Amino acid sequence: MLRGIIENTRRQKPLVHCLTNYVTVNDCANVLLAGGGSPIMADDLREAAEITALCRGLVINIGTLNERTIETMIQSGKKANALNLPVILDPVGAGASTFRTETVHCLMSQIRFAVIRGNMSEIKNIGQGKGFPQREDYTQSEEFTQGEGFHQGVDAADRDRLTEENLEMNSGRVRRLALETGAVIAVTGAMDLVSDGRRMAVCRNGHPELGRITGTGCMLSAVTGAYAAANPNRMFEAALAAVCAMGISGERAYQWAQAAGGGTGTMKMHLMDQIDRMTDGRIESEARYEVW
Amino acid sequence: MLRGIIENTRRQKPLVHCLTNYVTVNDCANVLLAGGGSPIMADDLREAAEITALCRGLVINIGTLNERTIETMIQSGKKANALNLPVILDPVGAGASTFRTETVHCLMSQIRFAVIRGNMSEIKNIGQGKGFPQREDYTQSEEFTQGEGFHQGVDAADRDRLTEENLEMNSGRVRRLALETGAVIAVTGAMDLVSDGRRMAVCRNGHPELGRITGTGCMLSAVTGAYAAANPNRMFEAALAAVCAMGISGERAYQWAQAAGGGTGTMKMHLMDQIDRMTDGRIESEARYEVW
Amino acid sequence: MLRGIIENTRRQKPLVHCLTNYVTVNDCANVLLAGGGSPIMADDLREAAEITALCRGLVINIGTLNERTIETMIQSGKKANALNLPVILDPVGAGASTFRTETVHCLMSQIRFAVIRGNMSEIKNIGQGKGFPQREDYTQSEEFTQGEGFHQGVDAADRDRLTEENLEMNSGRVRRLALETGAVIAVTGAMDLVSDGRRMAVCRNGHPELGRITGTGCMLSAVTGAYAAANPNRMFEAALAAVCAMGISGERAYQWAQAAGGGTGTMKMHLMDQIDRMTDGRIESEARYEVW
Repeated sequence: MLRGIIENTRRQKPLVHCLTNYVTVNDCANVLLAGGGSPIMADDLREAAEITALCRGLVINIGTLNERTIETMIQSGKKANALNLPVILDPVGAGASTFRTETVHCLMSQIRFAVIRGNMSEIKNIGQGKGFPQREDYTQSEEFTQGEGFHQGVDAADRDRLTEENLEMNSGRVRRLALETGAVIAVTGAMDLVSDGRRMAVCRNGHPELGRITGTGCMLSAVTGAYAAANPNRMFEAALAAVCAMGISGERAYQWAQAAGGGTGTMKMHLMDQIDRMTDGRIESEARYEVW
Repeated sequence: MLRGIIENTRRQKPLVHCLTNYVTVNDCANVLLAGGGSPIMADDLREAAEITALCRGLVINIGTLNERTIETMIQSGKKANALNLPVILDPVGAGASTFRTETVHCLMSQIRFAVIRGNMSEIKNIGQGKGFPQREDYTQSEEFTQGEGFHQGVDAADRDRLTEENLEMNSGRVRRLALETGAVIAVTGAMDLVSDGRRMAVCRNGHPELGRITGTGCMLSAVTGAYAAANPNRMFEAALAAVCAMGISGERAYQWAQAAGGGTGTMKMHLMDQIDRMTDGRIESEARYEVW
Repeated sequence: MLRGIIENTRRQKPLVHCLTNYVTVNDCANVLLAGGGSPIMADDLREAAEITALCRGLVINIGTLNERTIETMIQSGKKANALNLPVILDPVGAGASTFRTETVHCLMSQIRFAVIRGNMSEIKNIGQGKGFPQREDYTQSEEFTQGEGFHQGVDAADRDRLTEENLEMNSGRVRRLALETGAVIAVTGAMDLVSDGRRMAVCRNGHPELGRITGTGCMLSAVTGAYAAANPNRMFEAALAAVCAMGISGERAYQWAQAAGGGTGTMKMHLMDQIDRMTDGRIESEARYEVW
C-alpha cells in the first residue's frame, strides 16, 4: 500500500518550507534532501507566506518557539491551507510549558493540518477532549503528563510509553483524535501508531538508540513533509512510509555503528545515509507494520 | 596562479566574522576552521561592528534573514569597508522573495563587497541592469527566475543551469557584473565562473551530489572569507582557489562515501575532511580551470 | 575521587535546560545525550523559567548573545537558584566586545553559578579584581586581552596560554576567583585547571586538534551541565570529570581520525562517540590529573 511514495518524492523533488527550531534545523534540511525533497527555511514575517507559496508543503515545528515566529507560522499555515498544500505539525514539547500548550492550541485553531506527528506525551497533550480524556478525567494509574509528574521535556514521559497492553486503548484514542482534527496522527515511540481516523497502522520498526540522537523526531517530521508534498492525495500512506523509513533507517544505522565500534555520532551519520538510500522496495521488504 | 593562497591562510589563521543563517552556521564555522581561518559569529547590533573590527574579514549570508540582523549586516559591512577588510556576500535565495531581493539591493547599495558568491539564479537576480538584462528584457527562452516560474527556493532554477552552450553569454554577463559592482563574482553550479571584470575563470571541478548536502554554497562562501582575509590583495585568486577547493573536495568526498557504501551523511563528513586537508599543491594538481 | 560521576548521570538521565548559542546548539544537545543527560532548549521569556523548573540543571552559554535572550538567562538563572539547581556559565568570547563583557558581569551579579567554564582569556576577563589583576595592573609582559591586543575572538589569545612556567601564578588566581565567586572555575586549554577554591586540579589530557572543531568548549560546558545535574553535591568532581572526559575523548577521537585517514570532520564524529562510550572506569584509567 506504500508503493511509489518514495519514488514520487525523488522524481518530483518537492520544495518544502520548514518553520522549525534552531537545534535540529541543519539535520532537518539534510534529511529532507536525503528523502528526496528540497528544503527552504525562511521565518521572517515579511517573506514567509511568499516563500510558502513557492513550495509544495509546509512543516511547522515548535521546538524553539519564540514570539517572532508564531505569527509567521500562522500566516504561512493559512497560505498553505489556501493553496491546498499539506501542512505538517510537530508539537515538540507540548505540555512541557503553558506557552507551548497554548501555542499548539492556537495553531490548531487557525491552521488545518494534514499530519500531526509527535511522541505520546505530546499527542496526549494536544488530544485532550479530542480523542484523549481531559486532564481531570485521567485515573491515578494513567496520570497526566504535565506539571510535577512531567520530567522528560521534549521526550515522552515513561508513563506514556506505548505497550502491547495499552495498544488497544491508545489506538482508539489516536483514531478519534484523527477524526476530530481531520489530520493524520502519527505517534512515535517504542511502537508507532498512524491513523487517519478510518485506517490504523501500528509499526514496529525502530531502535531505542534513536532516542539518544537529538532531533530524530524533527527529522521524521521533515521527511514526512517531503513525502506528503509529493503525494498529496495519499496522506496516510505518506505519513506511514515516513515512519517506517525512519524506523528501518534507525535499525540499520545502529547496526552500522555497532559494526564500526562507534556510538551515537557514527549512528547519526548512518541514519542520514539510510534515509538517502531508502526506496519503496526496502520499505516493502523491511517494514513491519499492520493496518486495520 | 593560485600558489600560496591556502598556505597563507593556514599560517595567518585569520579571524573572520560571519553574519550567517542558522541552518548551516555550524558547518560554516567548522569549514572555516578546516580551511585555516578562525570563525566568530556575533549578530547583535550592540557588538557586531566591534567584533568586525577585531577581524580580518566579514561574510554576510542572507539564508535566514530577519529584521534584527539586516541592520547588523549594514553596520558590520560599513565597519569592514572603513577598515578595508574584504566582505563576502552570499545572496542566498535572492529572487525567491521580494524581501530577499530588496535586502540584497539595500546591502549592495551600502556596502562595498570584495566577493559575491551565489548560484546562477541568485546572481542573475542581483545582476539585473548590471551585466544581466532587466527582467522585462528576458526572452521567452531565458525567462526570469522569479514569481511563478521560480520553484527551486535556495537552489538554482533548471533554466539557469550553466552549459557549454550558454557559457559565452553568461561569462560575458558575469564579467560585466563584476565591472559594475567592483566585486569578484563567483557563480557556482555544474560549472563555476569567477571573474573580477578583467579576468574570467571557468572551473569544472565538483560533483552533483554536493547539491544534496545542505549549505555547501554557504560553506564555500565561508571558506572564501578565510582565503580572502589572508590574501587581501588577491581577491580573484582567493575566490577561485575556494571554488576549486570545494569542487575537488566534493569529488573526493563522493568517492570516499561511495567506497564506504555510504550516502550524503558520510559524504558530508568527508567534505569537511577534504577541506581540512586541502593544500596549494592539491589545488595545483587537481583543479580543472581555465582563465582567459 | 571521580568514581560514580558518569554512572550517576547515565542512571538518572537528568533533564538539563540549555540557553545557548545557535552555532553549536545541535552538538551541545547531542553531547549532552551522549554524556547521559537529556537536553531541552527553550529561550522564550514566556516559558524559560517554567522549563527550568522541570529540569535538574541549567547551562548558560553567551556564544551568540542577543537582546532577547539576556532577560531569559536572568529569569531562568534566578529560578534555578531558587530551586537550588546547579547553573553552569560558559562566558564565550568575554572580553571580545563590551557587550559580552558587560553581559557576563550582569549575569554574575544576578545569578549564583555552580561552575564557570571558559578558556584563559575569558576567565581572565571575568576574573578582574576577583583573583586576577585589574586591567590596569597588568605588566607589559602579561598584557590584557582586550582591544588592540585581542585578536582571537572566541579562542584564547596566545599570551594567555597556560604553561608549566605560569602554572603556579595562574592556578593561584583561579583559586582566588573560585573563592570570590563561590563557583567551581574550570579553565581549559593546553592544560586545564579546575578549582573550587579549596582544591585545585590540573588536567593534562586533550589534543590540540580539538581547537579546530567548533564548539568543543560549548560541548564541554553542556557535558558539565549533565554531570553536575546528576551529582549536585559534588560540583568540583563533576566539573573535573567533564574536563577529563572531553580531554580523553579528544585524544581518542584524534587517533581514530588519523587511523581512518580523516580530518576534523571524522574527528568530530568520533568525539561524540567517545563521550557516548565514556565510563567512570575509563576516566580512572586514562585521565592524567593531579589534585592539590
